[in-house]
Amino acid sequence: MRVEELDTPTLTIDLDALEENLTRYQAYFTQHGIGLRPHIKTHKTAAIAAMQMAHGAIGLTCQKVSEAEVFVNCGLAVDILIPFNIVGKAKLERLVALAKRTRVTVAADSAYTVEGLSDAAQRAGITLGVIVEVECGMERTGVATPAGATELAQHIDRLPGLELRGFMGYPTPPAVRPILQETIALFDKAGLAREIVSGGSTRHAFEAHLLPELTEYRIGEYPTGGEGHLRAGRHTVEQCALRVQATVISKPTPNRVILDAGSKTLSASTLQTDRGVSMGYLVEYPEARFYGASEEHGHVDVSACAVKPEIGERVQVIPVHPCPCVNEHDEMVAVRKGVVEAVWPIYARGMIR
Amino acid sequence: MRVEELDTPTLTIDLDALEENLTRYQAYFTQHGIGLRPHIKTHKTAAIAAMQMAHGAIGLTCQKVSEAEVFVNCGLAVDILIPFNIVGKAKLERLVALAKRTRVTVAADSAYTVEGLSDAAQRAGITLGVIVEVECGMERTGVATPAGATELAQHIDRLPGLELRGFMGYPTPPAVRPILQETIALFDKAGLAREIVSGGSTRHAFEAHLLPELTEYRIGEYPTGGEGHLRAGRHTVEQCALRVQATVISKPTPNRVILDAGSKTLSASTLQTDRGVSMGYLVEYPEARFYGASEEHGHVDVSACAVKPEIGERVQVIPVHPCPCVNEHDEMVAVRKGVVEAVWPIYARGMIR
Repeated sequence: MRVEELDTPTLTIDLDALEENLTRYQAYFTQHGIGLRPHIKTHKTAAIAAMQMAHGAIGLTCQKVSEAEVFVNCGLAVDILIPFNIVGKAKLERLVALAKRTRVTVAADSAYTVEGLSDAAQRAGITLGVIVEVECGMERTGVATPAGATELAQHIDRLPGLELRGFMGYPTPPAVRPILQETIALFDKAGLAREIVSGGSTRHAFEAHLLPELTEYRIGEYPTGGEGHLRAGRHTVEQCALRVQATVISKPTPNRVILDAGSKTLSASTLQTDRGVSMGYLVEYPEARFYGASEEHGHVDVSACAVKPEIGERVQVIPVHPCPCVNEHDEMVAVRKGVVEAVWPIYARGMIR
Repeated sequence: MRVEELDTPTLTIDLDALEENLTRYQAYFTQHGIGLRPHIKTHKTAAIAAMQMAHGAIGLTCQKVSEAEVFVNCGLAVDILIPFNIVGKAKLERLVALAKRTRVTVAADSAYTVEGLSDAAQRAGITLGVIVEVECGMERTGVATPAGATELAQHIDRLPGLELRGFMGYPTPPAVRPILQETIALFDKAGLAREIVSGGSTRHAFEAHLLPELTEYRIGEYPTGGEGHLRAGRHTVEQCALRVQATVISKPTPNRVILDAGSKTLSASTLQTDRGVSMGYLVEYPEARFYGASEEHGHVDVSACAVKPEIGERVQVIPVHPCPCVNEHDEMVAVRKGVVEAVWPIYARGMIR
């Protein structure tokens, strides 16, 4: 079956592009001696995680316990990092159960979290690996200062049931190197273990070698690309492997076409570009502007296109943000040179807990 | 089980609020002699559609054929309106198959669409009901003018396999009454059937009686509410039945708390408020500002809260836009006075075709 025969909208991934992305990024990290620990939050798909492991990944990053369970159940992950504060009895019980089955390291940024981890590990009779998250400019989670992170590491080190394994930051552009260095110096002064110094972000992946302190790196979007990476020059159109196949279903005015793919297909994510807000990049019509969407309709301004798409025509859309786009789908169709090779269930879709 | 015992994040719906919303809106439409045809795109849930039908709905609105199949398969819908241009062989075949099982009316805004419908109906040996969509200010789909809509209606009227049933617009605030009146006058002059004059939008629902031309009305969000309706005064906090139960999992600074519910739980939808962008309303902390999210983290500024939430504390979030939020979930938990009464599968989640 050819891709043109698939009903629309359908999520597809180009295998040649995917494999090239996996090879290119793995080669970089291998060359620089930094462990690549792919973040599965982007693709949520066992088939791609298996390819990442086969390419040389040291393990997987899963943002939630329920995601980690999927990949462990698929037999894929022998070493999982969960860079998320696990809080609450239900999730702690699942976390320690998982840690009995595979190597798990979990991140934390508060005494509250690590005390819960210690308590759960003790009840389960296991030792749980923990790293501290330190603020690196995202202003999300993370202990605000290296000194604070070191204090929390000392607390972890003293708590029963826990094994301190180091620390992490996100994102880690070269500018955060002083934070890593200061944290390392404080850890070393306090005699704290730091086998893991983990950085991350696809945006800064090829700058990772400028932070030789890093032992491993978490990236999610490198296999798929996306309009943000395309516009920033990190992925070419060809390297943007993830596409939504869509159909023009209305053309109410000469300059407005409506696709059968809206926010329920692409996610409600938007991207600010120099031409205004975008909800996707039309491969066949680079001059088109995908300026808005309702749930089932994509709204595209084609006034800048010399030749304009017609009703019934199919187009390929590169989503602005691959992660939430994938989460809208139960499966993705793997395609090579326009021919369907596989249909991959997205087993970790919707794993929110 | 009490709602506080559910692991987080979890989507819940309050049954008292849901029933009150269903009763209130149905009473209004019954009083004014306008058929209420709920749009299931918001809840995507058979259990709620069944309640809507029991309250007096004349049928259901489904945006895609695959959604309509779900409700027909649940035995719920004897009369379905699909306000969407159905384009392409695969969907046309499913549409006519569905029309053999139940009464289906489908909207169109182009000769391309209606010729495809006619062709498919003839092949299947059936008559398919069609209405014309006329532009009412949304600038999405819809024939640009009443005259153009009438021309398309004449085309439908002449095509074999189709039964012209009238026209629709979206949205239909009182200001669009002249468009409806002009279209009706043109239809009548041309001797065209118009048993259906369909309007829609929860925002303008209680103004529907100001357009006596309407025979029926499509609304989706009235059962659930949402932060947009709350801030506009259309739903009270109590009437916002749909909530995401979340937990504070980090508090890196005194004024920033991080929830375990991000865009993968709430959707990436945002709302512009007078205090800036919002991604949800915290019921227990009305002064908090849910200003951003990554996939699994919700970022909340609590600087304006006199008492601030602590790590481990549970909060209820009213999503800004219920429809894409529901689409992130496989089930919602129905709760009454804090006690779980049912777990409802969201059967139409992800039905994008």
